Amino acid sequence: MKKIGVIMNGVTGRMGTFQHLERSIIAIREQGGIPLPGGETLWPDPILVGRNEHKLRSLAEKYGIERWSTDLQACLADPQDQIYFDAQTTLQRAASVTAAIEAGKHVYCEKPLGVSLAESLKLANLAVEKGVKNGIVQDKLFLPGLLKLKQLVDSGFFGRILSVRGEFGYWVFEGDGQPSQRPSWNYRAEDGGGIIVDMLCHWRYVLDNIFGGVKAVSCLGKTHIPERWDEQGEAYAATADDAAYATFELAGGIIAHINSSWCVRVNRGELFELQVDGTKGSAVAGLRNCKVQHAAFTSAARWNPDVADPNDYSAQWVDVPTYQEPDNAFKVEWEMFLKHVVLDTPFPYDFLQGAKGVQLAELGLKSSTSRSWVDVPELKVESLARSGN
Amino acid sequence: MKKIGVIMNGVTGRMGTFQHLERSIIAIREQGGIPLPGGETLWPDPILVGRNEHKLRSLAEKYGIERWSTDLQACLADPQDQIYFDAQTTLQRAASVTAAIEAGKHVYCEKPLGVSLAESLKLANLAVEKGVKNGIVQDKLFLPGLLKLKQLVDSGFFGRILSVRGEFGYWVFEGDGQPSQRPSWNYRAEDGGGIIVDMLCHWRYVLDNIFGGVKAVSCLGKTHIPERWDEQGEAYAATADDAAYATFELAGGIIAHINSSWCVRVNRGELFELQVDGTKGSAVAGLRNCKVQHAAFTSAARWNPDVADPNDYSAQWVDVPTYQEPDNAFKVEWEMFLKHVVLDTPFPYDFLQGAKGVQLAELGLKSSTSRSWVDVPELKVESLARSGN
Amino acid sequence: MKKIGVIMNGVTGRMGTFQHLERSIIAIREQGGIPLPGGETLWPDPILVGRNEHKLRSLAEKYGIERWSTDLQACLADPQDQIYFDAQTTLQRAASVTAAIEAGKHVYCEKPLGVSLAESLKLANLAVEKGVKNGIVQDKLFLPGLLKLKQLVDSGFFGRILSVRGEFGYWVFEGDGQPSQRPSWNYRAEDGGGIIVDMLCHWRYVLDNIFGGVKAVSCLGKTHIPERWDEQGEAYAATADDAAYATFELAGGIIAHINSSWCVRVNRGELFELQVDGTKGSAVAGLRNCKVQHAAFTSAARWNPDVADPNDYSAQWVDVPTYQEPDNAFKVEWEMFLKHVVLDTPFPYDFLQGAKGVQLAELGLKSSTSRSWVDVPELKVESLARSGN
Amino acid sequence: MKKIGVIMNGVTGRMGTFQHLERSIIAIREQGGIPLPGGETLWPDPILVGRNEHKLRSLAEKYGIERWSTDLQACLADPQDQIYFDAQTTLQRAASVTAAIEAGKHVYCEKPLGVSLAESLKLANLAVEKGVKNGIVQDKLFLPGLLKLKQLVDSGFFGRILSVRGEFGYWVFEGDGQPSQRPSWNYRAEDGGGIIVDMLCHWRYVLDNIFGGVKAVSCLGKTHIPERWDEQGEAYAATADDAAYATFELAGGIIAHINSSWCVRVNRGELFELQVDGTKGSAVAGLRNCKVQHAAFTSAARWNPDVADPNDYSAQWVDVPTYQEPDNAFKVEWEMFLKHVVLDTPFPYDFLQGAKGVQLAELGLKSSTSRSWVDVPELKVESLARSGN
Repeated sequence: MKKIGVIMNGVTGRMGTFQHLERSIIAIREQGGIPLPGGETLWPDPILVGRNEHKLRSLAEKYGIERWSTDLQACLADPQDQIYFDAQTTLQRAASVTAAIEAGKHVYCEKPLGVSLAESLKLANLAVEKGVKNGIVQDKLFLPGLLKLKQLVDSGFFGRILSVRGEFGYWVFEGDGQPSQRPSWNYRAEDGGGIIVDMLCHWRYVLDNIFGGVKAVSCLGKTHIPERWDEQGEAYAATADDAAYATFELAGGIIAHINSSWCVRVNRGELFELQVDGTKGSAVAGLRNCKVQHAAFTSAARWNPDVADPNDYSAQWVDVPTYQEPDNAFKVEWEMFLKHVVLDTPFPYDFLQGAKGVQLAELGLKSSTSRSWVDVPELKVESLARSGN
Repeated sequence: MKKIGVIMNGVTGRMGTFQHLERSIIAIREQGGIPLPGGETLWPDPILVGRNEHKLRSLAEKYGIERWSTDLQACLADPQDQIYFDAQTTLQRAASVTAAIEAGKHVYCEKPLGVSLAESLKLANLAVEKGVKNGIVQDKLFLPGLLKLKQLVDSGFFGRILSVRGEFGYWVFEGDGQPSQRPSWNYRAEDGGGIIVDMLCHWRYVLDNIFGGVKAVSCLGKTHIPERWDEQGEAYAATADDAAYATFELAGGIIAHINSSWCVRVNRGELFELQVDGTKGSAVAGLRNCKVQHAAFTSAARWNPDVADPNDYSAQWVDVPTYQEPDNAFKVEWEMFLKHVVLDTPFPYDFLQGAKGVQLAELGLKSSTSRSWVDVPELKVESLARSGN
Repeated sequence: MKKIGVIMNGVTGRMGTFQHLERSIIAIREQGGIPLPGGETLWPDPILVGRNEHKLRSLAEKYGIERWSTDLQACLADPQDQIYFDAQTTLQRAASVTAAIEAGKHVYCEKPLGVSLAESLKLANLAVEKGVKNGIVQDKLFLPGLLKLKQLVDSGFFGRILSVRGEFGYWVFEGDGQPSQRPSWNYRAEDGGGIIVDMLCHWRYVLDNIFGGVKAVSCLGKTHIPERWDEQGEAYAATADDAAYATFELAGGIIAHINSSWCVRVNRGELFELQVDGTKGSAVAGLRNCKVQHAAFTSAARWNPDVADPNDYSAQWVDVPTYQEPDNAFKVEWEMFLKHVVLDTPFPYDFLQGAKGVQLAELGLKSSTSRSWVDVPELKVESLARSGN
Repeated sequence: MKKIGVIMNGVTGRMGTFQHLERSIIAIREQGGIPLPGGETLWPDPILVGRNEHKLRSLAEKYGIERWSTDLQACLADPQDQIYFDAQTTLQRAASVTAAIEAGKHVYCEKPLGVSLAESLKLANLAVEKGVKNGIVQDKLFLPGLLKLKQLVDSGFFGRILSVRGEFGYWVFEGDGQPSQRPSWNYRAEDGGGIIVDMLCHWRYVLDNIFGGVKAVSCLGKTHIPERWDEQGEAYAATADDAAYATFELAGGIIAHINSSWCVRVNRGELFELQVDGTKGSAVAGLRNCKVQHAAFTSAARWNPDVADPNDYSAQWVDVPTYQEPDNAFKVEWEMFLKHVVLDTPFPYDFLQGAKGVQLAELGLKSSTSRSWVDVPELKVESLARSGN
């Protein structure tokens, strides 16, 4: 039984508690740890860090955790903990992560890595300089539906991939009638809100990992609903974009267009769906499901508005079976990162990848303002390290 | 019984014969003409004009038409025919239409009006100068599904309209296995092919008429399939765009995004669908069907990939019934134009509207090349008339 | 209008009259002949030849044919007819076809080409020596279902093809209760009957053309029903095999197993079905239909007899659409052969291919007797020609 | 309550634990034992034997069994246990079973009985010499679908049986994308893998018991997929046959052809189906279902590819109802064997039958290598006994 100490900072928030503590670290303990080659077992031993003593104690009790603290500096100074995890708000992240790296901890973070590309790259660079392992949460890659899609891509199912269409979104209530399903800061630019900032980080790693690197972006942000009502029922000015219409050029000439919106009613099977078309076949993947149509049974559609279309298009798609119910996305990535630290197994989702997400969000905003396409320059940590940035 | 002579030029082609002759003019005669106020009936009396005597005679026999000719000049000189209709290829249109206007005929044309905005405006201007009535085919406005949508817009169903999403397209076979469903010239830029040129004319009048004027466009054209096989089974280089990813800004701040593609497998109910979202409700309209979701039964969607989404989104849309099977789109517009000539009833689809379609296609291509948004200047016939162009 | 004279010998039989005369030659005339490049039309001008003057005259009248004769030698001597077609019984074929070749006619024949491989090769060789064009009927290649299958193979749908399973057959009544659906000579070895002789000719060209050359055969013939009743209701000894269980090795290591039987009740969609399995997908093709299953939606079957199988296997196959209703198989091959004669366009189904069918039937019988696998030697006409055989 | 002691060796494996312990012995105890004539009840009292003390203890606890041991010799020496059951791997079976027979125990075994026919016959012979009762697992005979089929055969439904067609198999994933559904040793000849070895044992007792003795075999083994990925995700060479195309001659001239494959996509209702055709009727039986077609409603099929077949063949089969849900196959045979030991009731599935299965697998491999039919000599224990083997 090999123990590994993990400093968990900011897990008193909803996502941190539920996805990272309960459904990842605690779930790993409940399954008996992570089996290692040679018969040993890796056992995560968390210490909860935060500012609210009451919340920390109650979480620790609920999940049977012995250690918690309100003193991050002291925790970082303790050599028994090798990993620092950060789920604080983005504004607080850089300072804490920098301190952790300086203290020689391996670091794992919620996205986005920083408030700007510059800040994110600085962290990526520092981690490389100090030689600590680093990782960023990229949970959507582990969605069952996207895993099926990735496997189709890898198997060559599509022939040459031509295009990707994405629709993300649902109707977020304004808050005057039904309460809003999302926090009000999401709709205030001055508080870091906006759907471009929120979603383009995700689209970056989804597109990069499944189809090929994003080379250019044309994005239009729009605030469709200028007034909303907050958690207290007060009206406020919604200053952030609540819809983004973005087109991307990917490596290999693939075109991806993704609409992201909090002002759209759902005309799909799932809240997020990607349609991929290739010379040999197509697929539509969502969070959990994925259906395909091979070229061999694509029907010969013809435009003829005079008669009802003789094709039943929905019948021409076939579901990809769920061969194995995949594990929780967050837990899967936690296990990968823990093994990466202990066994030095590969972990592709490092700070550089996190910086790329922030980069795309920044360039998306720039494109929206400049009303033009914007190229996406390649990011490299090494060059930065060398030039001393 | 009031006869009206119509010179029909170019109806030996597939569209001309079927939609304009058989399903419009002949259909009007078979229903006994068009009832006019005061009990009279308007009776269209066509003369078929073209270059192939054999084809003209056989068409005339088939449809019981007495008059045909290969001499357009002679026809234009004959005062008994008041209307000139043109369904020739676009390259031949301007010369013939100009001659007809000069001869004082009212003119009605297939789209696109001209090969360029300049040519189209010249025709629009000349018609105004000479005081002849003029019209352009805009058949998609009369699709049953879009008529339902228009009615929803006019009724205020949507509250404030925020956005429009469109998907047009299907898989056009490359031609090496299954034969292609479309002619090969559609895929050669040098022959006037390309989906931007073909479809943006349509999107212009659809958007203008249903939602409000198009103010700006960002369009990316792409040739996804660079090699195809023609009618003789020979491989050829496909040089024209076969997919267009276009975003539009409309009057009132509405954003419209429409993907048009001949390289997409159909994941919809119909080959063309528009989704409209407004503060009070949404709709999805196709060629024939239209379904709606009112704000009152929009569900509170929440992002939670850990469990299957509890909402059955497709069940939250309700079909708009077909109160009356609408008449054939082409015939409806013919009847409008004939009455416009005889009774001076309004006819909104004049040459200026036709010029606007050509304008949007030109600006779409410009946007694709310049990789930026392009504003759509307002077109006016009067100013041109004044400046003597 | 270019006339081509065709001597049709033996079309007074059921197949000859219906498939070759009415549904091929007459059908070609009814469609206005065969269009040739350059605007000309090829017009088949048949002369019916046989022994029964009465039948010939009545056929000629029924189909509006001017010429018929009972004197084959005279016909062969007439230079206005370039093509000789033979649909006589197999025993009579060699002599007539030899005479036709010697007279310099191009020759087209029903299968099997000869009563033995030796006789068939002799004809193939003679045709090459004399430089006349030659063809054999291979109608099953033009079945709509097999055309779809061929297209799947050519498109690479299957990945690497592993195996082919075929089931051909139905229950042929013994004749004591229901009348038999087939002539009694089919069940008498002494009259050239037997399912191996009948069907292995077909399997040869089907396998050769769709998958790759047949390299070896293991075949078991069996007479399951030893007594049947003939057209007169008389009992007779059924001496020929009425079922054949045959396994083939094809080029590329593909294994094909085909059961052919007149003593089987149909547990399939069609009387003949081929299942093809490859690394990337599978298909089941019949006479008219073809369905596929791609590897991407193959379910993870598990053997567990304790519970009802959770998979609905039939739902995992998707029909290949009928893009175009294909023309009658016999007529298609006739048009190919006529063009081959006139335009020298390619025609792959020559006498050598016919000889290969007879070869496989002979080796199938040899395998059944010797109770072992038998290799299929490659056949070449050229070598025979050279050695003067 | 009559107790009978059963030494269970090797039930720590998946099949042993689940089918023999939980679903047979424990299930018999849960139903209150086996009723005997005269009102007594037979109560199986197992002792679990194996090498892993930890596993044995935990199994014993889970199922409420008092006795377990790691010392087989001591168990065999204890006279309170009359029966020895063996579910070890085939390599270990002969030594343990021999020891048990020498100790005078009645013996019951999983299949296959031995690694070779010679070893299997030696065991069969020894059991006869020593006068102990002996049995082998032949679970497929007790599948609900095959029980229905057996009943049809016994009732004379088929008239004279002519032929049997079998399809067994499904697609076993290669392991690089989806994980394989079967252990990797199945695909390595050097580890005892291969579908001939695995399945021909089953086909022997199924054919022997339902239709009549197997007299000769022609079998082609093939390795369709030469590379697979194992439980650790490592590529390995698949050296064993993964498909077998086998034809059998049975007593009475019946021909049986069975394809067995792990490289076939399922185009059937169930993973295994047998079609039986006889003069008076036919049946198709699977694991659970069985459908029939009597001669009285066999339709007159005719080959005519010109039109869609007018027969709906699937509608011409009628399901045999399930009169009683049959008990678990393994438990049924256990009850038969226990009664055989205690009451001397008949038990046809003795070691000689087990040896026959191994014999057919060996001859199948021999046929595949020699590329010819191989006769299946009759096996007799008596002669061996006499000759002192």
